[in-house]
Amino acid sequence: MKYVITIGREYGSGGRFIGKMVAEKLGISFYDNELLIEAAKESGMSETVFKNFDEKKDSFFGAGIGMYSFDMSLSQKVFLAQFDTIKNIAEKESCVIVGRCADYVLKDDPNLCSIFICAPMADKVERAVNFYGLKKENAESMIVKRDKKRKSYYNFYTDKEWGMAPNYDLCINSKIGIDNCVNLIVAYVKERFDLE
Amino acid sequence: MKYVITIGREYGSGGRFIGKMVAEKLGISFYDNELLIEAAKESGMSETVFKNFDEKKDSFFGAGIGMYSFDMSLSQKVFLAQFDTIKNIAEKESCVIVGRCADYVLKDDPNLCSIFICAPMADKVERAVNFYGLKKENAESMIVKRDKKRKSYYNFYTDKEWGMAPNYDLCINSKIGIDNCVNLIVAYVKERFDLE
Repeated sequence: MKYVITIGREYGSGGRFIGKMVAEKLGISFYDNELLIEAAKESGMSETVFKNFDEKKDSFFGAGIGMYSFDMSLSQKVFLAQFDTIKNIAEKESCVIVGRCADYVLKDDPNLCSIFICAPMADKVERAVNFYGLKKENAESMIVKRDKKRKSYYNFYTDKEWGMAPNYDLCINSKIGIDNCVNLIVAYVKERFDLE
Repeated sequence: MKYVITIGREYGSGGRFIGKMVAEKLGISFYDNELLIEAAKESGMSETVFKNFDEKKDSFFGAGIGMYSFDMSLSQKVFLAQFDTIKNIAEKESCVIVGRCADYVLKDDPNLCSIFICAPMADKVERAVNFYGLKKENAESMIVKRDKKRKSYYNFYTDKEWGMAPNYDLCINSKIGIDNCVNLIVAYVKERFDLE
């Protein structure tokens, strides 16, 4: 039984970590940044270009600069390479894929389980300060900015709206704790795909 | 242990029915239209006014008429009466409350579990035709209209956006089936509030 779990998430919600733990519990692969590198290799585009693109999204999507000023040709190439890579991976094996509009790429797959993780601002600030090294005094504004970028990226490349419940199979607020989120997702996936 | 489960839902998603079953399984009260009548009694406003208001939302929120043309003084009175009733009920007993922006009314209650139920359009059409007597040929457009109204009502009376995952604790797409949704919610609530 092959299935794919995609995870969209607010910055600092713990969504990436939850995805990693879900993949471990289910014994399936986990893709996040590795996906980019895979895409680079498969598309023949230079790994450096991808890394730079990924790191420079700040300037492409920066506040006040607007959606249309970033380098469309490069960003679209990168998106399309990722698009193909996600399709290829999903055809090969069960896995968890974090971010990258993977839910949209795989929307016609009946064995797609698309998940969105959000969290209260206080939790996101704490996580961003403890794990991502943000300074407490500007963590909240950084989080808001990051999520604006994720939203712009998603809304630009898909015909859906980032974070809107009807786009996903399951949306969980991680205030119940990371372990509880993981257990809930694993239980959901086992029930839905009749595993074990 | 007192807690309240609120359920927001797309029209035809089965959310109301899920709420009723969750309340039965947990042995707590269920409030939907009864809430309106309760509000009428407690506020001293005539029951007839409430019923008429509830039924006439179509014309108040009708497409093309716009948000600001409905009778603000009456609708606000009704909203405020419902607001107080929801607060009173939540203080008295554990319960499930469907719709009526109850999640917003109770947002400061740490024992609030706010849920949103959505569904694929095909499922909503089927449910609307089978259970609400909509004609198949215009069911989809009716569903879209109803949800626009729910969204307008919610977004007007709250500072949040209807259906956006971060506003809720848990959002479930009912394509996994009504029973699975009920089980998932009951498991979530038991874990979160340490019941049984």
